[in-house]
Amino acid sequence: MEVAPPGLKGLAVSDTELGDVRGDEGFFHYRQYDAVHLARTRSFEDVWTLQFSGELPPAVPRVNPGPMRELPTEAARVVDAASARMDDPMAVLRVGLLAVGAVEGRGPLLDRSAAQRRDDAVRLAAVVPTILARHHRRRDGLDPVPPDPGISHAADYLRMSTGGTASAEAVRAVEQYLVVTLDHGFNVSTFASRVVASTGADMAGALVAGLGALSGPLHGGAPSRVIEMIEDIQTPARAATWVSERLAEGHKIMGFGHAVYRVRDPRGVVLRAAAETLGGDLVERAAGIEEEILSVLADWKPGVRILTNVEYWASVALELAGVPRHMFTPTFAVSRSIGWAAHVLEQAEKGKLLRPAARYVGPEPARS
Amino acid sequence: MEVAPPGLKGLAVSDTELGDVRGDEGFFHYRQYDAVHLARTRSFEDVWTLQFSGELPPAVPRVNPGPMRELPTEAARVVDAASARMDDPMAVLRVGLLAVGAVEGRGPLLDRSAAQRRDDAVRLAAVVPTILARHHRRRDGLDPVPPDPGISHAADYLRMSTGGTASAEAVRAVEQYLVVTLDHGFNVSTFASRVVASTGADMAGALVAGLGALSGPLHGGAPSRVIEMIEDIQTPARAATWVSERLAEGHKIMGFGHAVYRVRDPRGVVLRAAAETLGGDLVERAAGIEEEILSVLADWKPGVRILTNVEYWASVALELAGVPRHMFTPTFAVSRSIGWAAHVLEQAEKGKLLRPAARYVGPEPARS
Repeated sequence: MEVAPPGLKGLAVSDTELGDVRGDEGFFHYRQYDAVHLARTRSFEDVWTLQFSGELPPAVPRVNPGPMRELPTEAARVVDAASARMDDPMAVLRVGLLAVGAVEGRGPLLDRSAAQRRDDAVRLAAVVPTILARHHRRRDGLDPVPPDPGISHAADYLRMSTGGTASAEAVRAVEQYLVVTLDHGFNVSTFASRVVASTGADMAGALVAGLGALSGPLHGGAPSRVIEMIEDIQTPARAATWVSERLAEGHKIMGFGHAVYRVRDPRGVVLRAAAETLGGDLVERAAGIEEEILSVLADWKPGVRILTNVEYWASVALELAGVPRHMFTPTFAVSRSIGWAAHVLEQAEKGKLLRPAARYVGPEPARS
Repeated sequence: MEVAPPGLKGLAVSDTELGDVRGDEGFFHYRQYDAVHLARTRSFEDVWTLQFSGELPPAVPRVNPGPMRELPTEAARVVDAASARMDDPMAVLRVGLLAVGAVEGRGPLLDRSAAQRRDDAVRLAAVVPTILARHHRRRDGLDPVPPDPGISHAADYLRMSTGGTASAEAVRAVEQYLVVTLDHGFNVSTFASRVVASTGADMAGALVAGLGALSGPLHGGAPSRVIEMIEDIQTPARAATWVSERLAEGHKIMGFGHAVYRVRDPRGVVLRAAAETLGGDLVERAAGIEEEILSVLADWKPGVRILTNVEYWASVALELAGVPRHMFTPTFAVSRSIGWAAHVLEQAEKGKLLRPAARYVGPEPARS
């Protein structure tokens, strides 16, 4: 029996045309395009189109999620029932997506045409901000703000969440965040979505598997904790002592270190620029504190280079754009659910089960 | 980059002590025990205990799901909201499990003690029949039947579903069905649960990934279709013609053929005996029709031996035990969710991400 490397590390389990990460170069791409360049020059809807259709507008029609953001009434009722009883927006999102899929009869992908599968993908990805914002408003005892089909996905997400109209700079910061977090090579949540999709299951089921994996502490971070750290440190002058103490106690420093990148995380560069456009005291303190932390980390372990990761400037950019803090991780779901959906569409085209084996390592069984 | 075999076929991605299938021998086991022998000699709760605790009662305390079957009120309301709007019991089950997990604060497994993880596993597996039966009753416009903590899991599942009291033979047939379908080596749904669990995610999220994979047409069959086939064939005398015509049209024959077993599926042997205990005209017709179908299949492709699989006699046994037909697949979820939960507990103990890679096969990206 062939045995996979522990944790499947380094083992290519799928072919993909959706993109890749080159950690040594600090470079990642969506299809044949530099993702950072896309974030600087394209709308979120353009990049969404690229991942679903293989080409950028105007070569192909642009995805138009606006009219798809409105929840079906029956699903909205399930979301409200869940919101009244569940505090975690990510948990409500899972329930909401399953409800939308079920009430609209978005059944097994194997039974659906390529056009129907794409429609499932657009629809279910489009309702993510609506479900999250609805839960957020209900949680605060406020009425939900219905979607506005005429504005961008990023703008409507902010509008439905806060009830107000954000500045163009704030919307653009969120949009750039959404572009650079839409996908990022292969990871456990993407893999979980593809495994479920390989059975020909429904789109909602595949996305909910991704959300389940994302909820695991070993999967990813919690960007809101970076902001709490910056508030705790207060000023660059206090950073070196604060960080040295944490390291001595064996803690990791939020917003620093990455499994793949050996040079600066390119997403952080875009998001720092977005934060700087929004400007203010927080940006200056964050920049000064980052410099101090990097200086401590450079001396911490000889030969180990720990750099700023995406979460540091992501958290500053989202904070300045007015995203409520407990919506930071949900905001990640707004973009990554589109990344998962693109992987699910790619997997569904293959129509092949991902069915590995296990090695029994217990005592020899008795025949009775 | 190491590349996995297509579909991960034959690749051992996990070590497990939970059991295995020996297709060439027609033998499968739970830990060190012959699963068929367990089905003949043990209660479902005993086998459940074995998979969660590693030993059979009385060496360890028996799992007691009775008091754990009652739904928390808040989750029952979410199930009712979903039931009113969603027709598929498996879709409602996914929503219900997420609701129970969330309202009870059953968060990431990584943050929970071994005792808490086991409690999550018992609780969420225990509510599966309650959610399914509640949906079934609501769907038929009937009031839910609350669980009875004093009777067995199989008996209470039947009672909550039908509202009546089943015979001891019917309960035992369902119980044997549950034992032999609790686990069966590695498959896509088990794998999906383990991938999600590897991130340290919540038990509900891991089980829902398994349910998502199970919903895929490529994963498994639909036992109720076997009964429909038997009704369509009517008598053994009509079977050979019926089957020959289907084969000529390129159809598969429901209830025959298996990816792993090269000899008779041992689960079918147990379930045929259970069906025969219940007795009646259906059993006699099913036995005669099976014989005719096997005879046609033996001549169909030289060198290819196609045998009866678990679904054939499972469907007859469930029908005779009084399980409503659209509850056949849900009944599988009653047992398999326990199998998944045991795998999730095993994976959680490892505390290691299953994070494979993908191979980018698109055009070379441009640096901008």
